Amino acid sequence: MEITKMVPNVRKGLVVVITGYGKGKTTTALGIALRACGHHLRTSIIQFMKGDLYAGEWEGVKKLNCKVELIPTGKGFCGIEGNPYPFKEHRENAQEAIQLAHQKMESGEFDILILDEINNALHLHLVDLEQVLEIIRRKPPEMHLVLTGRDAHPEVIELADTVSEIREIKHAYRKGIDPQPGIDY
Amino acid sequence: MEITKMVPNVRKGLVVVITGYGKGKTTTALGIALRACGHHLRTSIIQFMKGDLYAGEWEGVKKLNCKVELIPTGKGFCGIEGNPYPFKEHRENAQEAIQLAHQKMESGEFDILILDEINNALHLHLVDLEQVLEIIRRKPPEMHLVLTGRDAHPEVIELADTVSEIREIKHAYRKGIDPQPGIDY
Repeated sequence: MEITKMVPNVRKGLVVVITGYGKGKTTTALGIALRACGHHLRTSIIQFMKGDLYAGEWEGVKKLNCKVELIPTGKGFCGIEGNPYPFKEHRENAQEAIQLAHQKMESGEFDILILDEINNALHLHLVDLEQVLEIIRRKPPEMHLVLTGRDAHPEVIELADTVSEIREIKHAYRKGIDPQPGIDY
Repeated sequence: MEITKMVPNVRKGLVVVITGYGKGKTTTALGIALRACGHHLRTSIIQFMKGDLYAGEWEGVKKLNCKVELIPTGKGFCGIEGNPYPFKEHRENAQEAIQLAHQKMESGEFDILILDEINNALHLHLVDLEQVLEIIRRKPPEMHLVLTGRDAHPEVIELADTVSEIREIKHAYRKGIDPQPGIDY
């Protein structure tokens, strides 16, 4: 078979939201970066509330021979058991990530900007609704913007072009299975 | 912050199902491959019913400096408008993909085997339920097996450890927006 390359009649930067309580939101974001690489598109990923626990994507992205970067920010999930950092510090980190997002948009260096866990950061008041809406409004017309994280805000969903909700049907940890590298982190 | 590397007390190969009608199933599979790369895990992806339309992941995976492979099989979606191939041919292709899956499992060369769109292939009778169950049963204990595609069979879900359903909340094409490279293919 001969391979056909599809080309859109009109090129348009989409706003994509990946939300819900199931496994696969950050994973989807990483898949977007990998696929983009095959189209010679340049991707920046900013992770909110990421903390100090190693995630496979940190090294994985470095092994992708493309213009792609992943910047983890924050100090883990705000408000969950065992996280020792005060709200103020989590918020400061998330605010810096917002500034970083604007820099990436304005740089013109990226075709895709992924803000991983920003929906959750908004839900936890680490960033404000108006800040997220401003990023969506200021997005360059041909740049894709991907916003992941549970509890996406209705106004964000309203502005988005494509929204997927990932529902948990079952998860291995409920059977007492340890988180496994390559699948869970 | 010092980076902590989590190590599971018990290593276990999971059966993961990604199903539903929303955007992001294949994308999740690709993200798994990227993340696995950061853990030095080896991934084989077999795509069912893939056809001749270029997908960014075909080149993207080649740019991942890891032990990772992606093998597209088939001739596009069986039964959709405009697909000229008879059922028999679609089924033969899918049957070859099943044999390939067994080879990959038996080779011992991969830590993760992803069968992309196999749920859909089962739903369309290109493969049989017993064939999919046999793959799950014969899976090496430490190998992760990921089965994607809409309409996952209840018996497959029953055997799986982790199952996510991706629901479509909205999709750009419903507004008449052309599929965009990097996001839609």
